[in-house]
Amino acid sequence: MQNFEALSKQFTEQFNKDHFPKEPSSLYEPNDYFLSLGGKRIRPVMVLMGNELFDNITEDAWNVATAVELFHNFTLVHDDIMDKAPLRRGMQTVHEKFGESTALLAGDVMLVVAYDYLNKVSPNYLRRIIHLFNQTAREVCEGQQLDMDFEKKESVDFASYEKMISLKTSVLLAASLKMGAILGGALERNQNLIYEFGRKLGLAFQVQDDYLDAFGDAAKFGKQIGGDIKANKKTFLLIHALETTSPSQKEKLKHLLKTDESSKVEKVLAIFKDCGVDDWAEQLKEQYLAEALKHLDDVAVLSIRKEPLKELASFLIQRQH
Amino acid sequence: MQNFEALSKQFTEQFNKDHFPKEPSSLYEPNDYFLSLGGKRIRPVMVLMGNELFDNITEDAWNVATAVELFHNFTLVHDDIMDKAPLRRGMQTVHEKFGESTALLAGDVMLVVAYDYLNKVSPNYLRRIIHLFNQTAREVCEGQQLDMDFEKKESVDFASYEKMISLKTSVLLAASLKMGAILGGALERNQNLIYEFGRKLGLAFQVQDDYLDAFGDAAKFGKQIGGDIKANKKTFLLIHALETTSPSQKEKLKHLLKTDESSKVEKVLAIFKDCGVDDWAEQLKEQYLAEALKHLDDVAVLSIRKEPLKELASFLIQRQH
Repeated sequence: MQNFEALSKQFTEQFNKDHFPKEPSSLYEPNDYFLSLGGKRIRPVMVLMGNELFDNITEDAWNVATAVELFHNFTLVHDDIMDKAPLRRGMQTVHEKFGESTALLAGDVMLVVAYDYLNKVSPNYLRRIIHLFNQTAREVCEGQQLDMDFEKKESVDFASYEKMISLKTSVLLAASLKMGAILGGALERNQNLIYEFGRKLGLAFQVQDDYLDAFGDAAKFGKQIGGDIKANKKTFLLIHALETTSPSQKEKLKHLLKTDESSKVEKVLAIFKDCGVDDWAEQLKEQYLAEALKHLDDVAVLSIRKEPLKELASFLIQRQH
Repeated sequence: MQNFEALSKQFTEQFNKDHFPKEPSSLYEPNDYFLSLGGKRIRPVMVLMGNELFDNITEDAWNVATAVELFHNFTLVHDDIMDKAPLRRGMQTVHEKFGESTALLAGDVMLVVAYDYLNKVSPNYLRRIIHLFNQTAREVCEGQQLDMDFEKKESVDFASYEKMISLKTSVLLAASLKMGAILGGALERNQNLIYEFGRKLGLAFQVQDDYLDAFGDAAKFGKQIGGDIKANKKTFLLIHALETTSPSQKEKLKHLLKTDESSKVEKVLAIFKDCGVDDWAEQLKEQYLAEALKHLDDVAVLSIRKEPLKELASFLIQRQH
């Protein structure tokens, strides 16, 4: 079994090739550009790890890994349009550099090319893989739509937010592992356990992300602290604070959200700390992680085969950046 | 064998059902809305006709027909965003009614649901159908990008314009017929003949469309005459005029394209007529149609089976609207 680093290196090497025709370059150059910005390639490695949990990595798994990474990049190109984001990984987003219409089309064609890779999967597995891929793709779109819906709402309850994050972020991690497992010959019980491991890990990851944005070390985090607060983004922290703080603090918090004052981040963080949101978030993260690991433990394979996934879980969750 | 009208009626009946989940309605209601605007359903009927050319219509053909119609609607939703079109079939476009971000996502999810229907195809045909569908989808995106590229160019040659139209419009008609043929058990030679029939028919259809925009009867055409001229759109007519008219007329035409004067349409039409673009377009349309029918003739099935397709070709090409 290989760890994240080894698999990520292998995947990156084989992913760094031409996925698109050369012409028309006005359509495909934006795709090449976006893929060249890199990324941690977490999802495709999860396909490979889900596969190696049960057997040696197969050709099918490599193709699905590539499809998953292309799908993820398709969502990023379109999300950047929706968010009007100027930068991605410190570089211009596709719509900034090539215009919105081209970014829209480049994303569309990236999704189609993802299906080209899926279509290479052996007939034995093809329909099941596409079925899960499609379900996941629909859910990711639903999550993105709910996220946009929530931006317009004054308050969102914990369960709704958790569901949105599950759709927007977790199901792709979960499905990546499960597709690998299917291709490794895993039966349904094991497939579902590895899926839930991925889903809970995704939730833990998001709690961590929300936490770091508020309480992280700016230097290590690599971006400005309080970005979510400034943008009035719903986060695990904000939702819990609004649900648990005293009525007077709640009014203060709601008022702060409507302002743009320079001390906004500082004041919101003070309320967060005051109602113990930081400790709560740490506990919530640990709880999701424990649930994830419980599912992994239940997978009926030798525990030594699970080591790379356990290592990946710790790495993702304890990261400071 | 059934004619276009009969198959269109059957397709419309079975297409008028729920293709999307109910929730989140903020994502799926826009899709239901757009599909409810209707349409001639030409492409799915071509799948059915391509299928019935060789054998009785199969369950697989119905699923592919549905996938093709969803794909076509996905392209319309996204094209409307790119074109900033306020209306489609006399009703608000999705981005006008629900916002651009939702229209973008609704289009994305429509494409994914198209793949859900494709994924129902029998294992025997699944990979071949997805392969052709993907190739076509990529080409349609390429055609749309080239169309946008051409808008920025002062002149485009005939061959480039024909290629763009082939990609943007014709290949989906061609592939619809070919997918039906594949599912009807046609072998490669017949598949390719029916594909070329569809591709040439698509070109004839576009010449007709360009012609009607300039020389049609406004009442029958259902939209304002000269819309393409006002919008400085590249058309078969404009490209031919620029290629064949005298140097002085050409300068006049180029100058007119840069203006916005009220008599612009009238003056451009006068130049078109002066260099015989109207007759040329009629001939070009007839030539494409003849080439299309030649391919259909060569298909190795009883000629009585070809009647519905011949009838469809005449209907599409002689239409005044």
